[in-house]
Amino acid sequence: MLRSRTKLIELGKRQLCRSMCKSSELTLVEVDDKTGIATLTMNKPPVNSCNLEFLRALKSAMKEIESNKCSGIILTSSNDKVFSSGLDLNELRQPNPERLATFWKELQEMWVTLYLSNVPTAAAINGHALAVGCVMAAACEYRVMLPDFTIGIHATKFGYVVPPFIVNTYLSVLPHPVVERALLQGKIFSTQEALQINLIDEVVNSKDEALCKCADFIGSFEQTNPVARALTKRQLRAPFAKQLLEDPETELRESLEYINTPLFQESLDQYLLQLKKKNKK
Amino acid sequence: MLRSRTKLIELGKRQLCRSMCKSSELTLVEVDDKTGIATLTMNKPPVNSCNLEFLRALKSAMKEIESNKCSGIILTSSNDKVFSSGLDLNELRQPNPERLATFWKELQEMWVTLYLSNVPTAAAINGHALAVGCVMAAACEYRVMLPDFTIGIHATKFGYVVPPFIVNTYLSVLPHPVVERALLQGKIFSTQEALQINLIDEVVNSKDEALCKCADFIGSFEQTNPVARALTKRQLRAPFAKQLLEDPETELRESLEYINTPLFQESLDQYLLQLKKKNKK
Amino acid sequence: MLRSRTKLIELGKRQLCRSMCKSSELTLVEVDDKTGIATLTMNKPPVNSCNLEFLRALKSAMKEIESNKCSGIILTSSNDKVFSSGLDLNELRQPNPERLATFWKELQEMWVTLYLSNVPTAAAINGHALAVGCVMAAACEYRVMLPDFTIGIHATKFGYVVPPFIVNTYLSVLPHPVVERALLQGKIFSTQEALQINLIDEVVNSKDEALCKCADFIGSFEQTNPVARALTKRQLRAPFAKQLLEDPETELRESLEYINTPLFQESLDQYLLQLKKKNKK
Repeated sequence: MLRSRTKLIELGKRQLCRSMCKSSELTLVEVDDKTGIATLTMNKPPVNSCNLEFLRALKSAMKEIESNKCSGIILTSSNDKVFSSGLDLNELRQPNPERLATFWKELQEMWVTLYLSNVPTAAAINGHALAVGCVMAAACEYRVMLPDFTIGIHATKFGYVVPPFIVNTYLSVLPHPVVERALLQGKIFSTQEALQINLIDEVVNSKDEALCKCADFIGSFEQTNPVARALTKRQLRAPFAKQLLEDPETELRESLEYINTPLFQESLDQYLLQLKKKNKK
Repeated sequence: MLRSRTKLIELGKRQLCRSMCKSSELTLVEVDDKTGIATLTMNKPPVNSCNLEFLRALKSAMKEIESNKCSGIILTSSNDKVFSSGLDLNELRQPNPERLATFWKELQEMWVTLYLSNVPTAAAINGHALAVGCVMAAACEYRVMLPDFTIGIHATKFGYVVPPFIVNTYLSVLPHPVVERALLQGKIFSTQEALQINLIDEVVNSKDEALCKCADFIGSFEQTNPVARALTKRQLRAPFAKQLLEDPETELRESLEYINTPLFQESLDQYLLQLKKKNKK
Repeated sequence: MLRSRTKLIELGKRQLCRSMCKSSELTLVEVDDKTGIATLTMNKPPVNSCNLEFLRALKSAMKEIESNKCSGIILTSSNDKVFSSGLDLNELRQPNPERLATFWKELQEMWVTLYLSNVPTAAAINGHALAVGCVMAAACEYRVMLPDFTIGIHATKFGYVVPPFIVNTYLSVLPHPVVERALLQGKIFSTQEALQINLIDEVVNSKDEALCKCADFIGSFEQTNPVARALTKRQLRAPFAKQLLEDPETELRESLEYINTPLFQESLDQYLLQLKKKNKK
């Protein structure tokens, strides 16, 4: 506890790293001068929904952080209610073919960049983390979450069949039978439920505490060799990323095909209609 | 609780669905008019042991239920002591080669039909579930069991080496180290032990309650898109069914070869002799 | 308890099996005449660190035990503080190429022999089990450990990237996310922590009790067919040993390449320096 508090003070002194100033406004990057930990804050109003531009900004920010030899990445949100609402469904609805293809490639690349990041990654989940929002959290090595929020992949509820790399992200964190049921039900977990199934590691009461816990986690690698660590991580995770590493074109084609089916388009329309009705009430 | 009770009343009103009347006497199929849930009752006296004809009846009943657009399948038994005792060992002992091949193909097809069923599947385990009886329960998406019964795959006790698709059924439900020990020991679990390792989801005190829990589970998919659900299920389970989907002939050949070894035939004889002695006492 | 105590007495009567007398002094093999269980005691002073000769002795002892139709193997240590400290790092530091290749092949063969042993294997962990010491324990089917010791694979702490067969040994026992974090952190678990994550099955208070528990575990297979058991084990474990069974040369080449990198050699030097400083204090 004392150690955490000391760290809290240190974190208060975080400064904007000069080399990071170029980061787009969609993402904010701060680097702690002492620890070398980069905090990557998602900052796309209103709810960090992932459109083409935001995915690109996220990927760039992560690549920049890695090339700057930071000691780790903490992923969090500037919105104190929503970590990320997932993909921007407008990108999927009646899509322009070219933009959709570019969009999906950015999703693939953002995911590979995060999932196989050379440095330790931790998610400070300070709001709801839905669909790809949950996937981003699950792609990190560690997760801490604030109470009274929700997290999960509810794709079957809007007629979406998640691609293998998303299944595999869940399988990196949860046992197979738990993944099966969660994906089939489109289950959204409360913070407490997420803790029970180990979808998250810990629950804390404030964003600052969450950032501290993430910093502690990244600090746990201090005595390890970073190259050996990165190679070991790649060895463990590469099998789950195999398709996207070796044949992203096939995954792209299959995903685009499915998104363009009338089945999905109609199901998506229905879902958006329901959401509208719900919001009006 | 209240909700479950209301459902209990509804279930009391279940009627024999007309389209289902053709189901053989070895299996009984009832469909709830309101929920669309089909209850498939195994009804082969005395203990639902799977011979050629019973496997065929099970497969046909499942295919019929799926083609009738039911909302889910509950698998249960008309015997209030035994869910299923597994394969009819008479099919394996000094077998007629042709019948054995046909028998094994039916086992493969029944398993694929159940394991990859498009609709939600749930097992109301109202008695002992041994060997393939356990496999059928584990191939469902959800399991609820009555107390004071047993469940497990005890193949090593009669010299049998379970084929990969049976290993994989266990692996769909249990962690690898648990599967290894259970299969090597030929472990039969009590209801309580099965709950502890999550081989079953819940324990209830009556068959009616079990059917209600299964109906609740199937109802949990109400707000999901059934096609997306089915495709997601197939995506998760197909890797475990790969051999039977792509090359059932090889699995058939390997299984027949093993069944015909003197090692297995002698071990089976010994086991049946022991059973006889035990029953005489 | 009573049963265990009776067994304790029986174990007290263990005699050196004549056929086993040839076992080298680096390993001691005793066979219980009644149960047929072989106790393989690692006996390389000071801390059972695995150099070429010791790996060879271990492999030979295991092969000898199997060919003598023993009913199972208990792996333990003659040192009451250390089960095994892992690989002898002198074999890896500025290595002679030929000796290193021979050494690594022996490691591969010892591992395959233990991991795929036809008979039940159990580890009585009566001291620290580090790196390959932990791997040997994890390659057994059952583990019981004494309190106040440590167990784990800390390879990332001396810049080592564990090869796939070592990752797979961990994955045979622990869930994927636990393996990832443990390997990346180079985590050494206390006895109590190891119990919590199921890296070990039980904690006992003396070596004798540990040997009894292991004997009980091996006895749990009494009613199974040993051939069916061995084939089932191979079926479950062979996928994890695939590379070493089918293409040990590639694994050898990759391992030797990594060991010879300046990255690893420097990291190892640093680590050994730290150890020296620590021991001087």
